[in-house]
Amino acid sequence: MNPTIELLKSHRSIRKFKDQQIPRELFEELIRAGQSAATSSHVQAYTVIHVVNPESRARLAELAGGQPYVESASDFLVFCADMKRSTEAAERSGADVTRGMTEQLLVASVDVALMAQNVVIAAESAGLGICYIGGIRNNPQEVSELLKLPEHVYPVFGLCLGYPDQNPEVKPRLPLASILKQDVYDDSSDEALVAEFDDTMARYYRERTGGNKSTNWSEQLKPLFTSKLRAHMKEFLNKRGFGLK
Amino acid sequence: MNPTIELLKSHRSIRKFKDQQIPRELFEELIRAGQSAATSSHVQAYTVIHVVNPESRARLAELAGGQPYVESASDFLVFCADMKRSTEAAERSGADVTRGMTEQLLVASVDVALMAQNVVIAAESAGLGICYIGGIRNNPQEVSELLKLPEHVYPVFGLCLGYPDQNPEVKPRLPLASILKQDVYDDSSDEALVAEFDDTMARYYRERTGGNKSTNWSEQLKPLFTSKLRAHMKEFLNKRGFGLK
Repeated sequence: MNPTIELLKSHRSIRKFKDQQIPRELFEELIRAGQSAATSSHVQAYTVIHVVNPESRARLAELAGGQPYVESASDFLVFCADMKRSTEAAERSGADVTRGMTEQLLVASVDVALMAQNVVIAAESAGLGICYIGGIRNNPQEVSELLKLPEHVYPVFGLCLGYPDQNPEVKPRLPLASILKQDVYDDSSDEALVAEFDDTMARYYRERTGGNKSTNWSEQLKPLFTSKLRAHMKEFLNKRGFGLK
Repeated sequence: MNPTIELLKSHRSIRKFKDQQIPRELFEELIRAGQSAATSSHVQAYTVIHVVNPESRARLAELAGGQPYVESASDFLVFCADMKRSTEAAERSGADVTRGMTEQLLVASVDVALMAQNVVIAAESAGLGICYIGGIRNNPQEVSELLKLPEHVYPVFGLCLGYPDQNPEVKPRLPLASILKQDVYDDSSDEALVAEFDDTMARYYRERTGGNKSTNWSEQLKPLFTSKLRAHMKEFLNKRGFGLK
């Protein structure tokens, strides 16, 4: 196993950060590393908003469902899927552009995720810790207004960055055999593999809490699916010009 | 700049591979590195299909729009967004699950992209080359049937993996200032920055083709947006149980 693979396998989210700034040069290097990720048809369908204003940070921490590290991390980024820049460039070159296609939502959402993951790996390679903040999709309209996002741009997730002031364990993952299949999707062993993973996670929670937390993977997922998950997203995307056509 | 950031910044797609197998141990290590990526609420909403069968590979090369490297790469993976495993696990634990939410499409598409990008970085750190294949969304229904994907699973992109038998240049990216903004989305300089990038890309194409290719970024994007981009995707996702609710 080489050092890069070791780095990848040592990832865990960091939610407590030292009061130490990331040098601007390093910060820009992380974003450039992000830009080097593969991009669909070279479209680079993303914009990163670096949120520096303290009031905006406090407001985003609230909007993300009360996540204080959004405010306390050294740096906070909002990764946006952006179909504005590229479609306008094509238009200026004479293209008759159709916007709002579902496929454009996918292209931009995948593009920004690949880019962000490169930023994350670069950050972790430089000794920084990170935490993705999907919670900005709790209130995506308010987030968009705060950041003055125009049409055809939507906030996909946030990212806290900073020097770690905690050292949590790496969280277990599903057995390889459950997520890797050969030639066809054969899930005949999946129930057994999930049961095995439930045991792993039960042990993990027990050990971390001195026996106080009795739960497992399947149990932890229940609240996520029992209510309608962020039921506002369809209408929100429509409003942002990602019309799901 | 540390070696990991250097690696990230040296990415370019590889479409010509040596006739050399990836050892199984390394291959599994890449997938495990992928699994270590951050995942929304620990849901791990992905499945990777490792396509080994030569007939399937040939068919996928066709379905992706005639991309021969899908067949000739040492290994080919199809990365699927998977909301089946996790929702069924929650159901077995007693959750009353609502499926088909737009948000679930986003969670799963982002989860699988973060995971894939880790696989890519791990592969490149081990001297392999890669090429993402978004072209499998040209014929997603046929791809799903070939791989026997069940409902609530959809193929997001493919990935060619292998030992590089070519050494293409790194492709330029948009100026940092156009994709990185502070506090708010201010695009007052975007048109000028895109014009600057059009010049960069025009020079890049000219130099690579001995002066024969006269185009730029904006021109190259025109065909992408002039027709309706993969207009089948909405109906396809609906059929797969990603109902855009």
